[in-house]
Amino acid sequence: MSKSRQSESSIEQVAGNGLLDRRALLRSGVMLAGAMGAGTAGSLTGAAAEPLAEAPWSTHPGGQVPPYQHASRFEDYVVRTVDNTKGEPGGTRARTPHQLLKGIITPNGLHFTIMHAGIPDIDPAQHKLVIHGMVKQPLMFTLDTLSRYSMVSRVGFTECGGNSAPLFSNEPIQANLQALHGLSSCAEWTGVPLAVLLDEAGVDPKAKWIIAEGADSPHLTRSVPLKKVMDDALVAMHQNGERIQPGQGYPMRLWLPGYEGNMNVKYLRRVQVTDQPGMTYYESKIYTDPLPDGKDTQFYFVNEVKSFITSPSPGLDLKEPGVYEISGIAYSGSGRIAKVMVSADGGKSWAQTALQEPRLPKAFTRFSMPWRWDGGPAILQSRAWDEGGSVQPTREQFVAARGQTTKPPNVGGFPGHHFNAITSWGVDAKGEVKHVYA
Amino acid sequence: MSKSRQSESSIEQVAGNGLLDRRALLRSGVMLAGAMGAGTAGSLTGAAAEPLAEAPWSTHPGGQVPPYQHASRFEDYVVRTVDNTKGEPGGTRARTPHQLLKGIITPNGLHFTIMHAGIPDIDPAQHKLVIHGMVKQPLMFTLDTLSRYSMVSRVGFTECGGNSAPLFSNEPIQANLQALHGLSSCAEWTGVPLAVLLDEAGVDPKAKWIIAEGADSPHLTRSVPLKKVMDDALVAMHQNGERIQPGQGYPMRLWLPGYEGNMNVKYLRRVQVTDQPGMTYYESKIYTDPLPDGKDTQFYFVNEVKSFITSPSPGLDLKEPGVYEISGIAYSGSGRIAKVMVSADGGKSWAQTALQEPRLPKAFTRFSMPWRWDGGPAILQSRAWDEGGSVQPTREQFVAARGQTTKPPNVGGFPGHHFNAITSWGVDAKGEVKHVYA
Repeated sequence: MSKSRQSESSIEQVAGNGLLDRRALLRSGVMLAGAMGAGTAGSLTGAAAEPLAEAPWSTHPGGQVPPYQHASRFEDYVVRTVDNTKGEPGGTRARTPHQLLKGIITPNGLHFTIMHAGIPDIDPAQHKLVIHGMVKQPLMFTLDTLSRYSMVSRVGFTECGGNSAPLFSNEPIQANLQALHGLSSCAEWTGVPLAVLLDEAGVDPKAKWIIAEGADSPHLTRSVPLKKVMDDALVAMHQNGERIQPGQGYPMRLWLPGYEGNMNVKYLRRVQVTDQPGMTYYESKIYTDPLPDGKDTQFYFVNEVKSFITSPSPGLDLKEPGVYEISGIAYSGSGRIAKVMVSADGGKSWAQTALQEPRLPKAFTRFSMPWRWDGGPAILQSRAWDEGGSVQPTREQFVAARGQTTKPPNVGGFPGHHFNAITSWGVDAKGEVKHVYA
Repeated sequence: MSKSRQSESSIEQVAGNGLLDRRALLRSGVMLAGAMGAGTAGSLTGAAAEPLAEAPWSTHPGGQVPPYQHASRFEDYVVRTVDNTKGEPGGTRARTPHQLLKGIITPNGLHFTIMHAGIPDIDPAQHKLVIHGMVKQPLMFTLDTLSRYSMVSRVGFTECGGNSAPLFSNEPIQANLQALHGLSSCAEWTGVPLAVLLDEAGVDPKAKWIIAEGADSPHLTRSVPLKKVMDDALVAMHQNGERIQPGQGYPMRLWLPGYEGNMNVKYLRRVQVTDQPGMTYYESKIYTDPLPDGKDTQFYFVNEVKSFITSPSPGLDLKEPGVYEISGIAYSGSGRIAKVMVSADGGKSWAQTALQEPRLPKAFTRFSMPWRWDGGPAILQSRAWDEGGSVQPTREQFVAARGQTTKPPNVGGFPGHHFNAITSWGVDAKGEVKHVYA
């Protein structure tokens, strides 16, 4: 067998339209890399030295080391997109640029946020957290007193109920990943289990809920079942090591692994223990789901299993036929991701991706698979399963259960919530990537 | 049994001088929390409302949402300490403020760095990585071509060989944790396995080493055994999701899980495959360890098992007797942390701490334990074991093997490397925390 035939046959296809076995890529990279002059063991030959011509940064000392470092100036486009910058009613959203990130940790500068009335400038020395209601002993905590408790750290995602709302449109909206799925991020949160504080307060056996309230001017208020709180709720004070960012609830927030974003009340100042939910504005009016039969769901808590391909994606066009990495994120509010399948032919055939370790419960899991684009049309999709056996719905299934609507005037203005169906990226013969329904 | 006696007896001591069982703290927090007026199920009483008096941030809209967010202005003291800011010979070090952080992820702004000639301003579009030497086909990569490979993410620590050098002093140097142990950090790194690229180049079976070289002006160059490279070396391009920071090697660095800091060559531009090490300046002169018998160790690779208590620590004094969290970091370049013991009586008695999940190999592991300070003197220590059975040495053992020296003129100027013995914090009757030898 000739060397080139060996090389070709070793690129083993595992599903239609170029999905490759993980090890296949190991012998295909010569296509990707330009050869340089022949090297020798001891030193570079003249020909080989050419690619390493000295640039200014190789010949002159560099710049000062800052106390707090920031990304290179060449990365200044890696930012959140912020809407409603004039602060008109309706709040402001800042979306994570998933198409430019790798791994599972969202750096603090790029974690998504939704603010209903701007970012409060809270003096941590003045902030107080009160626990009261159906308890034996109401308690008050400051950041100082809370910091004396044993803390728990946990890596997990937070997702807005309104993430992916543009996909309720009955026509695929042409926008990039950040605009479509950017209201979801993942960080390491550290804080005191709320159960510890409630145990100290002494919860009335008849209590069934807490009502949590924020200290910023909207005083966003949500009800959470006591069972969930006693299971894994944190009063989080740190985010990826440092203090929580102003947009994530500085100096403290409620953090409920796997529960939808706005229930994780930011700037937490009050936990009232009760025997019934508060039926607050945000749970009775805003984050309910209208159903095709005219009824509404109530108390949607857990973000259901979901995935999307981050690369390729709209804006990350393919320059030439060849091998690329399909990379993406999967997560479930119910637990660990069990598997993620991808398709390059719009769902006709599927192949199982490699899942990156660690696979943590209720956290982003990164998946990847090598793909050889032959220059023809392709439709890329991902579909996730969680350990509980739940599977991400197809768009057809999701629309049958939840409906869709006519195209809205703008991407940000969509009323739908809790979209978790399959997302499809269409690749045309020029290598351009578009949002499609398939 | 009276209620107060029940409460006291349930604070179960597990080792001398106040080390408590993990669950004990659950019933001790009334000591920490100020009570508020009696609460009712439905609403706050007048007395209870007082602690929640409205602050300006509770009554007025907040500030704008920035595209890239930064910490609150109240956190402006949470920065790296930077020495040699005038750029005199000897390089510059920026140290992580571990005493102010929680969890295991070091945020990118606070990751330690050592620069031998400032931070280069590298244009990623012009940067090239060349693989040559004992290979069939020399290869050249750009950031673009590398980005088409399937990537691997891994959370892991990086530690400078000179971290903790002040502890070689024969007298305990009075400095905070950041000054003593701040040249170690932990992040999620994402990149292409170097083994994949070397397989493509076709490594000569006689090759045994690589020599890696950086693109900044010092062209720092280190030799790495080929076996390690083929095992788990990455050409890392992302750090906690976003692109690597300028101080960590933007746009790409060699990342060798568990191997000492400077081997993880930043601004990686050359990998030469050879049959012998380069005996470069940094491996033959700088990062060797002088031994008491007059000889030197050569080729120190793996950062050995280590731990330190981050809180309490110097500068984080105790305000009053009561229960506090002992929190700290443990890590080993050989694998996972198996257990961490702490002592509050200078090593007379020890108790096993709770280890935070996930416990990842060659990554920070966070440990914690509740401790009741009775107002008397205490000496806090931590000691770590890794899964391979290696144990962190006592100071006495370490000094016997590696020596110590007279007090240097400044903390930064210490010549020692690879210190990993137990660190001791002395607490006096005023609650002040000092660095001591015990």
